[in-house]
Amino acid sequence: MALRLDGKIIAQQLSKSLQNKVKELKTKNIFPTLCVIEVGEDPASTIYLRAKRNLAKKIGINEITIKFPSSVTEVELLQKIAELNRDPKINAIMVQLPLPEQINPLTIVKAIEPAKDADGFHPYNQGLAWQGASDILPATVRGILEILDYYKINVSGKNVLVIGRSLIVGKPIASQLLNRDATVTIAHSKTINLEQLTKQADLIISDVGKAHLITSEMIKKGAILVDVGMNREQGKLMGDIEYEECFEKAQAITPVPGGVGPLTVASLMKQVIILTEYQVDGR
Amino acid sequence: MALRLDGKIIAQQLSKSLQNKVKELKTKNIFPTLCVIEVGEDPASTIYLRAKRNLAKKIGINEITIKFPSSVTEVELLQKIAELNRDPKINAIMVQLPLPEQINPLTIVKAIEPAKDADGFHPYNQGLAWQGASDILPATVRGILEILDYYKINVSGKNVLVIGRSLIVGKPIASQLLNRDATVTIAHSKTINLEQLTKQADLIISDVGKAHLITSEMIKKGAILVDVGMNREQGKLMGDIEYEECFEKAQAITPVPGGVGPLTVASLMKQVIILTEYQVDGR
Repeated sequence: MALRLDGKIIAQQLSKSLQNKVKELKTKNIFPTLCVIEVGEDPASTIYLRAKRNLAKKIGINEITIKFPSSVTEVELLQKIAELNRDPKINAIMVQLPLPEQINPLTIVKAIEPAKDADGFHPYNQGLAWQGASDILPATVRGILEILDYYKINVSGKNVLVIGRSLIVGKPIASQLLNRDATVTIAHSKTINLEQLTKQADLIISDVGKAHLITSEMIKKGAILVDVGMNREQGKLMGDIEYEECFEKAQAITPVPGGVGPLTVASLMKQVIILTEYQVDGR
Repeated sequence: MALRLDGKIIAQQLSKSLQNKVKELKTKNIFPTLCVIEVGEDPASTIYLRAKRNLAKKIGINEITIKFPSSVTEVELLQKIAELNRDPKINAIMVQLPLPEQINPLTIVKAIEPAKDADGFHPYNQGLAWQGASDILPATVRGILEILDYYKINVSGKNVLVIGRSLIVGKPIASQLLNRDATVTIAHSKTINLEQLTKQADLIISDVGKAHLITSEMIKKGAILVDVGMNREQGKLMGDIEYEECFEKAQAITPVPGGVGPLTVASLMKQVIILTEYQVDGR
């Protein structure tokens, strides 16, 4: 029987501590401000942005949304970002993905001033993170680290398998676990021996988006399982990992929903406060 | 019996093609120029810098060395780098490592304009390389890729084990092999099951600096072995991999000396020319 790694509780505690932090900053006349750029009307994005807005409000972060129609050009977006980069009242900027076809997301990500990079997708910040010299991280990555820290899971010398190689989750979490002295393997859609790899892993982080991908036969007894997948099947939300059967065999496992998910938005808010403090104190 | 992966031949061909490239650029009044900053007198660095100077001369690259005493301050170095960043006649800048204790190498590496980053150590370039969007790479990493390309070694779906996690070799070569669809494992000094990992690897890149680290019992039959280690034992230069015994079992292996080594300097020159062309053509 595994330990259920409860993201909700950690997210609540984190939100509470961020709330106190913001109160403290406000006594010094510092008002952490996040600007979100929204392009078009993606239904999933709309739900996620609402969650961001609500949590920002609760914590006391000033959240400003700038909307563009889906017909916006890359130049228009870049102009707005340049303006926000210069604006001293804006501490953090994020552009909600996905973007319409005519816009190259990497061009947009690179345009945001690294010191205001709420999402931690800027190549400069990602490079620094690989060099062990940054705590500007994508929200999901920070969320996973919050779980490991809360439950005091030490990865040093452990075999960690990261499944998925996105710049949002797979690659940056690999960097952070390597910095924590794990032996890290990055698997992906072209990997041919996934089952061999999962069987050897002490910790699996799965960010694939494929329900039933990892079954109990595929894991080692006592493994720790972190499920970043979000899959909907007949109206039911589930991760990449077969929760029920793996629960019996694993040492610890994150549920979906209620694992990494709740921490993503809270971690973004933490990032906003970290960026604000850097801008005030210098870095 | 393995194929001997001959770095010397590739380095000669590469130098020849770079020579032609420089001739062509000179007809357009473009004179690729590398500025090397040398601090103090490290004997290994002196030998390496001489090799760089000689090859630059042969290829037709204008090489300028600026020497500082080992008592130089960080501020003095940063001022010189800022000046070189602004100088339109300088296409590429490198600071020879190691640096004296009073200087933080990461501070220096970050100060070089990414577009003039001959060594490919700048976090921005390393982040871009992880995002699959840069060909500004550390010389050793480019050298390894030159070997794989020359011998048409396809890594897609292969299990690649990178031993060592430096920002000069381990991490950036992992990024490039992941971009080429390999399943990549990064092992290091805290890894506890190295032998299990080496036995499963289709391709091993070793950058540890420990003679006799990898023996033939530790490798899979038919593995490809790339040895970046440089160890001196009783006056003899050798890599991390036991060459003679692994030669019998492997599919291909780089010798030390004569493998990756000769390609490092030639790859640096290729980087200088790539940077020069970016500066002329825009990127």
